[in-house]
Amino acid sequence: MMWSSKVGRVPMLPCRGFATSAQKEWSHTLPSKVRIVEVGPRDGLQNERNFVPTRDKIRLIDMLTNTGLETIEVTSFISPKWVPQLADAKEVFTSIQKKPGVGYPVLVPNLKGLEAAVEAGAEEIAIFAAASETFSRKNLNCSIEESLSRFRQVTEEAKRHHLSIRGYVSCVAGCPFEGSIDTEQVVRVTCGLFEMGCYEVSLGDTIGVGTPGDFHRILQALQPHVSMNALAVHCHDTRGTALANILTALQYQVHVVDASVAGLGGCPFAPGATGNVATEDVIYMLRGMGIDVGPIDLSALIAVGQETCQLLGKNNNSKVAVASQASRVRKANL
Amino acid sequence: MMWSSKVGRVPMLPCRGFATSAQKEWSHTLPSKVRIVEVGPRDGLQNERNFVPTRDKIRLIDMLTNTGLETIEVTSFISPKWVPQLADAKEVFTSIQKKPGVGYPVLVPNLKGLEAAVEAGAEEIAIFAAASETFSRKNLNCSIEESLSRFRQVTEEAKRHHLSIRGYVSCVAGCPFEGSIDTEQVVRVTCGLFEMGCYEVSLGDTIGVGTPGDFHRILQALQPHVSMNALAVHCHDTRGTALANILTALQYQVHVVDASVAGLGGCPFAPGATGNVATEDVIYMLRGMGIDVGPIDLSALIAVGQETCQLLGKNNNSKVAVASQASRVRKANL
Repeated sequence: MMWSSKVGRVPMLPCRGFATSAQKEWSHTLPSKVRIVEVGPRDGLQNERNFVPTRDKIRLIDMLTNTGLETIEVTSFISPKWVPQLADAKEVFTSIQKKPGVGYPVLVPNLKGLEAAVEAGAEEIAIFAAASETFSRKNLNCSIEESLSRFRQVTEEAKRHHLSIRGYVSCVAGCPFEGSIDTEQVVRVTCGLFEMGCYEVSLGDTIGVGTPGDFHRILQALQPHVSMNALAVHCHDTRGTALANILTALQYQVHVVDASVAGLGGCPFAPGATGNVATEDVIYMLRGMGIDVGPIDLSALIAVGQETCQLLGKNNNSKVAVASQASRVRKANL
Repeated sequence: MMWSSKVGRVPMLPCRGFATSAQKEWSHTLPSKVRIVEVGPRDGLQNERNFVPTRDKIRLIDMLTNTGLETIEVTSFISPKWVPQLADAKEVFTSIQKKPGVGYPVLVPNLKGLEAAVEAGAEEIAIFAAASETFSRKNLNCSIEESLSRFRQVTEEAKRHHLSIRGYVSCVAGCPFEGSIDTEQVVRVTCGLFEMGCYEVSLGDTIGVGTPGDFHRILQALQPHVSMNALAVHCHDTRGTALANILTALQYQVHVVDASVAGLGGCPFAPGATGNVATEDVIYMLRGMGIDVGPIDLSALIAVGQETCQLLGKNNNSKVAVASQASRVRKANL
C-alpha cells in the first residue's frame, strides 16, 4: 500500500507492547451473547409521580414483548402503601399477553408479596437487598442482615413453589446517604443472595455514581467467590457512565445487562437527573460490538419508548432514540 | 470471613480463566495520566446559530483557563463566509489571558488562515481532514487527496514558523453521507497527517455513531503504523457511546481526549442530537478510574458550563453537571 511506506516520520513512543496485549485480550474476553433484562415497566413506572393507568401498563408490556425482548420485569407485588404506582400488580401481571420463551419476573419484598405473586401465577421473582446499611434501613426498613433473613424466608417459600429467583444488590458503587460503600459489603450481600438460591444477582449502581474503576474493583473482588456468568449489572446513567460501566462488566464476562426502555425511571435521590440506562442505547452499543442480543427489533423498541414518553409527558432519555427521531425530522425537512 | 465459607452453592460456570486474565490486563493497560483538550470555544461555538458576542467568548476562555485545563482550542481562523460565528478569531485570540504552560491551539483551514493565526501570535495550529470522501467534499470543498496536499502546504509554512501542528480526522466511525467508512481510509488519512508533521492526530467520531467495536477496529488497524501515544480521540455523544469509546481508546494506551464543556456543540447533521462529549463527564469518569487528568477544578468547570449554557439559552449536556445541580437543588429544599 502506497501510504504504508511513508510512515517513517510517525512518532514511535513506548508502550506498544501493552497496547498489543490489550488488543488481543479485548476481543477474547467479551461475551458473544448478552441477555437484556428490560426493567422499564417496574423500575421505570414505580418512579412516576402519577399513577399510570393499568391499561397503559399492560399495553406497554405487550408492546415490549412484541419487540423481541427475552426478559421483562413486569411489576412489583409490594404494598400499595409503599409504592401506590404499582398497586395494580395483579391485574397487570394476569392481563399481559405472555409469549412462550419470554421471562416475566416480578419484584417481591416479603412473604406477603410472594403469596400474591404466586397467586397471580408468577414463575420468577426478584428480591432486592442493599449494600448500604443506611439505604437498607431507609428503603427496606431494616438492616442488611435483617433483610437477608427476611429474604431467606421468601426464597425458601419460593423454592417450594419452584420459582426462579433473581437477586438485586443496590448501591454497589455508592450510597446517597453513606457515600462510598465498602467492596466487602457488596461481596457479602451478593454471596448472601446466591446462597439463598438466586440463579443470578444484579449489581445495581442505584444512584449512577459508579465509573469503570468501581466496576473493576467490585468485579475483581467478587471473582474469587462467584462466577461472572451468574452476575448482571444494573447501571443508572445519572453521570453518563452507564455504557462504559457495562463495557467494563462485559470484559469480566458478565453477560446480563438490565436496562429500561427510553431510560425510564428517575433516581428519587437526584431529581432532574436521569435514571436507568436506556435499553435502546445498550442494544446499539452491543450490536456495534458484534455481540448478539437476540432478535430485538430496535426500531420497534424506539417507537415503544417514544410512545411511552409521550404518554408520560417526559423526555426520552435514550440518546439513540433522540438521534433517530432527529434524523427522521431532518429527512422529512429535506 | 464468615460469608466466604458459605459460597458452595454459588453457580460456578466456565470462562473464569478468561475473566481473570481480563482483570489483570485491564488495570495494566490503562494510561496513568490523560491530557484533556477542551474544544468547547471552537467546536462548540462554531455550531451556535447566533453569533456569540466576542466579549463572552473571551470571558468563557478565560474562565476555562482558570479551571486548570491544560489545552484549550480557542477559535478557528476560517473565512467568515464559511463560519460567521468565529469571524472574531483574531480579537478573541489576542484578547484572552494566556496562562504559561497552557496550550491555546487554533484551527486553520488553509494558508490564508495560517497567515492570520501567525499574525495573531498563535503557537499551535490544528488542521482537519476527513476519512470520508463525500464529507471532505461537502466540508472542505475538495477530495481527501486535495485536502492533504493543501494541508501539506499549510504545514510546511507552519513549520517554518516553528508552530506545533495537531491533526483531526473526521468521520472515522461513520459518515452522514456514506454510512460506514473503510478502516484503511482512516489509517491512510491519519498517516498522511503524521507524515506532514502533526505531533498528534485526533480521531473524530463526528456524528457520534461509533461504538467500542469501531474504536477497537480502528485502533487495531492503526497500531502497526502509528504509536497510540500520538493519538487522541474526539467523540461525539450523539448515541451515548462516547465514554465507552473513550474507555476503549484508553485500553489501547491512547491518552489524549478531546471534550467540550457542557457538551457544547451540536452535530449539524443530526439536529436535536447532542454533540461533543462533556468535559465534566470525561473528568468524572477518568478520576473515578484513578487516572490523573491534571489539576482541573471540576466544580469550577461545572459552574463555567452552567453559566455558558444560561448565556446561550441551551440545556447543559453534561450529565455530571445536571446531577450536581440536581443534588444542589435537593439540598436547598431540605
